[in-house]
Amino acid sequence: MEDKVVLLDFWPSPYGMRVRIALAEKGIEYEAREENMWDKSPLLLEMNPVHKKIPVLIHNGKPVCESLNIVQYIDEVWSHKSPLLPSDPYQKSQALFWADYVDKKVFNFARQLWRAKGEGALNKEFIECLKIIEGELGDKLYFGGQRFGFVDLALVPLTSWFYSFEVCANFSIESECPKIVRWAKRCREENQSVAKSVPDHQKIYGYVLFLKEKYGI
Amino acid sequence: MEDKVVLLDFWPSPYGMRVRIALAEKGIEYEAREENMWDKSPLLLEMNPVHKKIPVLIHNGKPVCESLNIVQYIDEVWSHKSPLLPSDPYQKSQALFWADYVDKKVFNFARQLWRAKGEGALNKEFIECLKIIEGELGDKLYFGGQRFGFVDLALVPLTSWFYSFEVCANFSIESECPKIVRWAKRCREENQSVAKSVPDHQKIYGYVLFLKEKYGI
Repeated sequence: MEDKVVLLDFWPSPYGMRVRIALAEKGIEYEAREENMWDKSPLLLEMNPVHKKIPVLIHNGKPVCESLNIVQYIDEVWSHKSPLLPSDPYQKSQALFWADYVDKKVFNFARQLWRAKGEGALNKEFIECLKIIEGELGDKLYFGGQRFGFVDLALVPLTSWFYSFEVCANFSIESECPKIVRWAKRCREENQSVAKSVPDHQKIYGYVLFLKEKYGI
Repeated sequence: MEDKVVLLDFWPSPYGMRVRIALAEKGIEYEAREENMWDKSPLLLEMNPVHKKIPVLIHNGKPVCESLNIVQYIDEVWSHKSPLLPSDPYQKSQALFWADYVDKKVFNFARQLWRAKGEGALNKEFIECLKIIEGELGDKLYFGGQRFGFVDLALVPLTSWFYSFEVCANFSIESECPKIVRWAKRCREENQSVAKSVPDHQKIYGYVLFLKEKYGI
């Protein structure tokens, strides 16, 4: 049977970007269906009745939900090319730990930043989280060492939002976390999968302006 | 090399119980070190500097943190006995999805319940989450079908707290989610790993009374 892969997606979503990167890394052909977040399709509600959120990967009719779970699934099913998680159980546990940290901490604070009006406390918490993950990166090229992998994929989509965060919340990420900013540039320049899956920061900023107008912020 | 396994734990913690169950399922010998949550040991702070939380599994000197991540690690390293996650990638993705749901939703609401004073809204949210996971259980014996597995392990520790939730927050879980209550009983009665790792509900209630006194609630 030929694989039929459909991705329910929304272009500014860093969660959706993760799955796009994974599919591109593996060279998987798929049909992308753009969702309207303010009028979700019956297909999305049917495929993800619990969270009702994108991204959803529909593989031969069966849904997989939650971005990191989807990426792990893709990595296992299409294991012949571009492994994303290490095969060694300990290394793998560490990659899953840091990806989980990105989800629970970094993304969580980031979610509030575009609404921010320069609150010092929120900026500070976000930067503290980012510094911890920068400490884990250290002087390596990528989180896993020499090659782009699972933790890079988990975090890099958010960097397309950095410019918007800086403008909205009035702080400089580069001056606080220069290694993360250099790493983000490297991810984009050296990996086609990232370059083609993660929108330009100006395009994201345009979306943020749309959001601000929509919600009167 | 013989495996040296140490678990940093705290007896009433449902997160710690998950790891205890996994170690018991696999028949792994380990040294349990009980932590004091109000005066954390230097070892805990060294082994989990990011979250500073139990459980931490220290395997031959190397730490693994976050309960579901630890259980996944145990399942991969000691793969010869009692598999917890399915080997099929799709089934595995579904088990990981539901375990994540238990973490993000069920445990999250539960965490607030012992402090509750019968707030209807919190009880309602908790029961709604529990009903969703009860729907996933359906009429199966266990979440994965005939055998105790990953999702059972993720959820069953919390059932030792159900009696305390019912008393503190003044509602009946059994009348709302009878299948979950029957499943919890089955888990305990048919699995030695659960019976020996999950404390009795009266012991948990004693701990809750201690907490209430400590925090003046």
